[in-house]
Amino acid sequence: MIDVRDVEAAAARLDGIAHRTPVLTSRTLDGMAGASVHLKAENFQRGGAFKFRGAYNKIASLPEDARGRGVLAYSSGNHAQAVAIAATLLGTRATIVMPEDAPPAKLDATRGYGAEVILYDRWREDREAIGSRLSAERGVELVRPYDDPLVMAGQGTVALELLADAPDLDVIVTPVGGGGLIAGCATVAKPRGLRVVGVEPENGDDTARSLAAGERIELGIPHTIADGLQAPSPGELTFAVNRDLVDEVVTVSDAEIVDAMAFLFDRLKLVVEPSGAVGVAALLARRVAGERIGIVLSGGNVGAARFAELVRPR
Amino acid sequence: MIDVRDVEAAAARLDGIAHRTPVLTSRTLDGMAGASVHLKAENFQRGGAFKFRGAYNKIASLPEDARGRGVLAYSSGNHAQAVAIAATLLGTRATIVMPEDAPPAKLDATRGYGAEVILYDRWREDREAIGSRLSAERGVELVRPYDDPLVMAGQGTVALELLADAPDLDVIVTPVGGGGLIAGCATVAKPRGLRVVGVEPENGDDTARSLAAGERIELGIPHTIADGLQAPSPGELTFAVNRDLVDEVVTVSDAEIVDAMAFLFDRLKLVVEPSGAVGVAALLARRVAGERIGIVLSGGNVGAARFAELVRPR
Repeated sequence: MIDVRDVEAAAARLDGIAHRTPVLTSRTLDGMAGASVHLKAENFQRGGAFKFRGAYNKIASLPEDARGRGVLAYSSGNHAQAVAIAATLLGTRATIVMPEDAPPAKLDATRGYGAEVILYDRWREDREAIGSRLSAERGVELVRPYDDPLVMAGQGTVALELLADAPDLDVIVTPVGGGGLIAGCATVAKPRGLRVVGVEPENGDDTARSLAAGERIELGIPHTIADGLQAPSPGELTFAVNRDLVDEVVTVSDAEIVDAMAFLFDRLKLVVEPSGAVGVAALLARRVAGERIGIVLSGGNVGAARFAELVRPR
Repeated sequence: MIDVRDVEAAAARLDGIAHRTPVLTSRTLDGMAGASVHLKAENFQRGGAFKFRGAYNKIASLPEDARGRGVLAYSSGNHAQAVAIAATLLGTRATIVMPEDAPPAKLDATRGYGAEVILYDRWREDREAIGSRLSAERGVELVRPYDDPLVMAGQGTVALELLADAPDLDVIVTPVGGGGLIAGCATVAKPRGLRVVGVEPENGDDTARSLAAGERIELGIPHTIADGLQAPSPGELTFAVNRDLVDEVVTVSDAEIVDAMAFLFDRLKLVVEPSGAVGVAALLARRVAGERIGIVLSGGNVGAARFAELVRPR
């Protein structure tokens, strides 16, 4: 499907354009986990999440005439912003299909990056159908959020950079939504002998169940605060990769996610969105074992007001 | 009083011990400010604030026998944690006199770093008197939060690092409480031709008034959310420095501080405490002018619950 060379090609395209995000450590976290923990801070990525990597890699790889006609994406938020930014940087225009209940900060940011936003009701309408129809009507290229080899390869650059900064990791942990991030990271990490662990919200464990069943399982859209991890089923292409390369997918509750967000806030002074905090949530809940653990903090797009709402009632 | 060589000596003592905190930039912030803005992220410093620099420089400079007897400090919070950490690193013990209404996160953290905490009522008791009495009774050295040349010199390393990473700044902006941070930074920045601007909460503008009067003015303890900037008057030694070197002190309201904290959260994914956000608050309120502006984010010690409380009611 994809191999390390695809990820390296993506890294070359992203060089000097994506942020080289820092890998952070915390004595407190190491003490709590009984391990050496390395956090890849993709909350500092352009657009506030790792999604920029895959979107830019995809759009930059389009033939010039296709790219000139513009691109279209459907997304619960971070992919939308990523496509909007990448399109602008590459001199083209983006149309984004977003759920009408997406976090207001994400809707505003997407429009702020210059994209046209089309809203839909994600409990009643099918975003893929809307995306395909608009793509055909307008003659623009669809940039899928995960089920595309170029998108997966772009996301894999997270692991390339993490392993460049912390070469002796024995485990890598990433959030799992549609499976693009973990597919790209596993493509890099598995050949180097790392154990690859995914984390899903317990109400949205479609990939964990699919791996257990050996085939893609379709759940309803999960109700969880991790709005970036609400894919109802694994992607077709991502699942083909992840079935081979992912060792395990564990789950965390919404309450555990909020605890992890508060921990990252209090101790590391980092803003991490619910979807981005699931790796640390799994670590603090002792569902991830290892001596030198790399964890991807996948994004930071939670507004201050929403954060307050999540943390306040405790 | 102090000169650049004192700050360089402090930098040598802190090398490899204090964190070399990053200098961060934001296209959004630059656009809003109409300037190139460089943020020195001391929220990532050991203990969560710049205070570690001065405390460590002071304790490391004590004669060995004095250091062995232990140290004592009074502090509204960040200096307390700083002294506790520095004492532990230097193999001695710290006693900390803290106001009983200090943020719980700060009390807990100070105890967590191994210090003995003694509480007092800061609306009725005088912390300097308590500190002096305990220091005499116990034969331990008092580590002042700002009014000490070694503490000022330690804080000045913030400006040394900021100017190493962003050498062409024309303005440096720091919060002003007792005046130690700005005194140290001005000692570095003024000889290099920068304009030095301090920021105080509008209810605690003791330094602004003192500079206008040409002498130290004593206010009551100000009611402000910026709990690190509640000094009732400038320090004696810090004022002697700041009277010569500080160009201007501007003020910001508590509401402006909260807006700046929310901006730093939403757009930069940074946790910055109220006192640490005053520089950005002043910038966003257009009270600081310049083309290349360095701003010290002095600390990040605001608990998640307290942040929620501050941001929620808007």
